[in-house]
Amino acid sequence: MSSKILEEFKIDIEKHLEKTLSQSSYINFFHEVYKYSLLPAGKLFRPLLCLAVAKDTKNSLDNNIFYLSSFVEMHHTYTLMHDDLPAMDDDDSRRGRAASHIRFNEWSALLAGDGLLNASYRCFAKIDSSLTLKLLDYASWALGPKGLILGQALDLSESMNESINNLVLTHRLKTARLIQVCLTVSRALSHPNPSLKDLKEFHRLGDDLGIAFQFLDDLSELSEKELTKHEKEVNPWVHSPQISQEILCKSLERIGDFFQKNKMEVLNEVIENYLKKMRTHITESSDIIKNHVRIDLNPTISRLN
Amino acid sequence: MSSKILEEFKIDIEKHLEKTLSQSSYINFFHEVYKYSLLPAGKLFRPLLCLAVAKDTKNSLDNNIFYLSSFVEMHHTYTLMHDDLPAMDDDDSRRGRAASHIRFNEWSALLAGDGLLNASYRCFAKIDSSLTLKLLDYASWALGPKGLILGQALDLSESMNESINNLVLTHRLKTARLIQVCLTVSRALSHPNPSLKDLKEFHRLGDDLGIAFQFLDDLSELSEKELTKHEKEVNPWVHSPQISQEILCKSLERIGDFFQKNKMEVLNEVIENYLKKMRTHITESSDIIKNHVRIDLNPTISRLN
Repeated sequence: MSSKILEEFKIDIEKHLEKTLSQSSYINFFHEVYKYSLLPAGKLFRPLLCLAVAKDTKNSLDNNIFYLSSFVEMHHTYTLMHDDLPAMDDDDSRRGRAASHIRFNEWSALLAGDGLLNASYRCFAKIDSSLTLKLLDYASWALGPKGLILGQALDLSESMNESINNLVLTHRLKTARLIQVCLTVSRALSHPNPSLKDLKEFHRLGDDLGIAFQFLDDLSELSEKELTKHEKEVNPWVHSPQISQEILCKSLERIGDFFQKNKMEVLNEVIENYLKKMRTHITESSDIIKNHVRIDLNPTISRLN
Repeated sequence: MSSKILEEFKIDIEKHLEKTLSQSSYINFFHEVYKYSLLPAGKLFRPLLCLAVAKDTKNSLDNNIFYLSSFVEMHHTYTLMHDDLPAMDDDDSRRGRAASHIRFNEWSALLAGDGLLNASYRCFAKIDSSLTLKLLDYASWALGPKGLILGQALDLSESMNESINNLVLTHRLKTARLIQVCLTVSRALSHPNPSLKDLKEFHRLGDDLGIAFQFLDDLSELSEKELTKHEKEVNPWVHSPQISQEILCKSLERIGDFFQKNKMEVLNEVIENYLKKMRTHITESSDIIKNHVRIDLNPTISRLN
């Protein structure tokens, strides 16, 4: 398996996203806001997960999977647009460009985010399967007040930083839930006879991926020589290095176990690509990182290899 | 038919809304934001439309209709929460109380709005019918970038005030679309064999109701003795009285035709209740209103009687 297939996947995902967007909105003054926010697409990590699971499960892709991939990308984009607003994280830039509310204005970014959120559910409605409604129930649970939204609320209320348990819960909700939707819904749509047990394995993989990614992200952020007081306070590797390493290694171990048990070559490649980048970055910056973390990081480094 | 049935409907709608909310969200620090924004419920005009159509169509109410009524009320509430934010209309109060972003803070209102929007689609997923997916496609079209959201964009961009056509289009999208969802989806779920022709009549009724309500609203706003410069500029009864009266009377005429043709007693009562209030208000303030409007308003008054 080469990453050629992933490059082809990206092209197909972006094509479908463009097509879906042009069907979702009239081409008028407000269309520009959607287009600017959604395209050119970013890494498309989440849609790639959808396509990879489908390819590994039934060796082909159908319209349902492309509607699912547009659903997750539109949904992901709305969360970024709202997160970037001054009332939330107040970030001026996104993907190396001006954030939507900077390029346009606040009401446009807020409203276009709402528009994408509604449009994402319209993509879901196009999924033609006997399971669609059950999967919609699952997806809207995962992304709603009991899921992703609660994760954002824990983050913004700073409850996230009160304990390592709260931090893990936040990652689980804010990051893992959407990844779980990609994996589990794609599996359910691609398998001829999906069992609850099988779907739960994909759901659990998504949980481990979300947690692992966030702890790796926190670790890689320590590659700066100087940390602000706030960074030191909130980064779990600074205040709870031992438990952070345990949580990350446990997640990586379970991810490894999943791929031992399930032959999912394309999915494995998508995830490996991501882990490889993190490994390179962390290894190259290990001297600086070690200054901030009061434990031996070899268990993490070796688990990543 | 007495309005006793509508009072009972309201109690049942609010009960289901409370139940759905407690299932949609964990009872934690953030639950308060949802609860404050959604309850005690307002006039429940939109859910009442759903129940009225179901009652008139099949003389009974089922869980599907209550999920639909929670869908529309949650959806309506999220639009109000976002509309009230400083980046949008910047209103400090709502239903005689502090708006959600005043009672809590901006990020809470924004995020809880997103939460209700996601939760509303989860209500839709609970509608157990062979038509659910098609109706979801319709509802997310009506409320998304081609519908309600575009109406809000026309309003906020002030394109709405550029011509009477733009104003009607804005009312059609921003106000009528959600009313259309109430009427059309409820009819489709309640009728044993709904035809496209029949559903289109309910869809069209929603269009006329949305337009009539907004023009009546604009007219009743002229009951103030002094108008600001801005009010004079944007109120269609001030700058285009003749065409405003024509549009309103045409809509009221078509609403009347609908009830001539379709025996929908409860629905008629819900709408009559609203029109009666407007009629009383406009008649009582007619001397002041006449100072602002340069035409004879008798056609409107008599059409309302």
